[in-house]
Amino acid sequence: MSRERIEPQSGRAFEMSRGEILRVIDPSGEQVADFIAFARADPGEWLSSGRTFDYNNTIYLTTGHVLYSNRSRAMLTITADTVGRHDFLYTPCSQETFDILYQVEGHHPSCLENLVVNLRPFGIDADRIPTTFNIFMNVEVAADGTLGILPPRSKAGDYLEMRAETDLVVGLTACSAEMSNNYRLKPIEFERRRP
Amino acid sequence: MSRERIEPQSGRAFEMSRGEILRVIDPSGEQVADFIAFARADPGEWLSSGRTFDYNNTIYLTTGHVLYSNRSRAMLTITADTVGRHDFLYTPCSQETFDILYQVEGHHPSCLENLVVNLRPFGIDADRIPTTFNIFMNVEVAADGTLGILPPRSKAGDYLEMRAETDLVVGLTACSAEMSNNYRLKPIEFERRRP
Repeated sequence: MSRERIEPQSGRAFEMSRGEILRVIDPSGEQVADFIAFARADPGEWLSSGRTFDYNNTIYLTTGHVLYSNRSRAMLTITADTVGRHDFLYTPCSQETFDILYQVEGHHPSCLENLVVNLRPFGIDADRIPTTFNIFMNVEVAADGTLGILPPRSKAGDYLEMRAETDLVVGLTACSAEMSNNYRLKPIEFERRRP
Repeated sequence: MSRERIEPQSGRAFEMSRGEILRVIDPSGEQVADFIAFARADPGEWLSSGRTFDYNNTIYLTTGHVLYSNRSRAMLTITADTVGRHDFLYTPCSQETFDILYQVEGHHPSCLENLVVNLRPFGIDADRIPTTFNIFMNVEVAADGTLGILPPRSKAGDYLEMRAETDLVVGLTACSAEMSNNYRLKPIEFERRRP
């Protein structure tokens, strides 16, 4: 089993087979990895935050929780998690995020762009990318509904593992948004193993 | 301006033009209406909970908030709201919701089915339906992330108004899930007016 690396502000896409386990590692600490999945047999079936919230009865997913598709099928099960705080509310940062929220001038790398570029060879275009599962992203919801983005709780070497419950195409990034990553943009690593 | 009625456990779809205002009324109280919108020019552009959360910095949307598309464009603005509590976390109830969560035997009417049937003439299929804006649905998020579905806060005659910021195709239901509607399934009414 080899460890692969996603450079800061970049992304990857690859196929997973049913039963395969993906370990997503934060090698430096305080770094978010946006994750999305589609059924390999039909990319019309996609990882759904809304279905996942409904069937797990929580917005914070961790070990033992199942991530569901829009068709209410199990896509992945979280099998290990050394952090315990991830986000499934926000869409991946995009050029417009930086334009609208952060008044950035000109091109800024973004998770959406990195997902689109890497998923294109699998026939998945930008409009098909829904809310991502934002591994290690630390979002608090106040009692009045106000959202706060805090530094990730992950320390160097922390990880989250998921088992594919069906054949998948997945996308994974090292997030590009300064604020989500405590203002240091670091790599993400991952390992894959067959049962 | 005429008032139209959506019978219990059913739905409607229609076009809205930029500037048009839609008033969604709960005539009986404690009844949820699931709402979704697509750009009329290209249904690849859809109402996005994740973008909307990001740009408004809250999960609870009310008067003055703008609802955004996956392409980060303004789709609708909430112009009036006599209730102040709506949900944008959950996907519409579906046959599988009733199978998995409520162990219902056989067919149960659902918001997803009612959206799919009514949006089909506009070329929008089930896999394109993302998380809906669930008007009057009352969802609490506990500090540990646990979700609770409470009776809607809406009383008879309460309403929410939205202005279309671009030409849209929209779907709207009288929600079919017993628990979300305090165990009485009632109609929804709506009015449309041009500026």
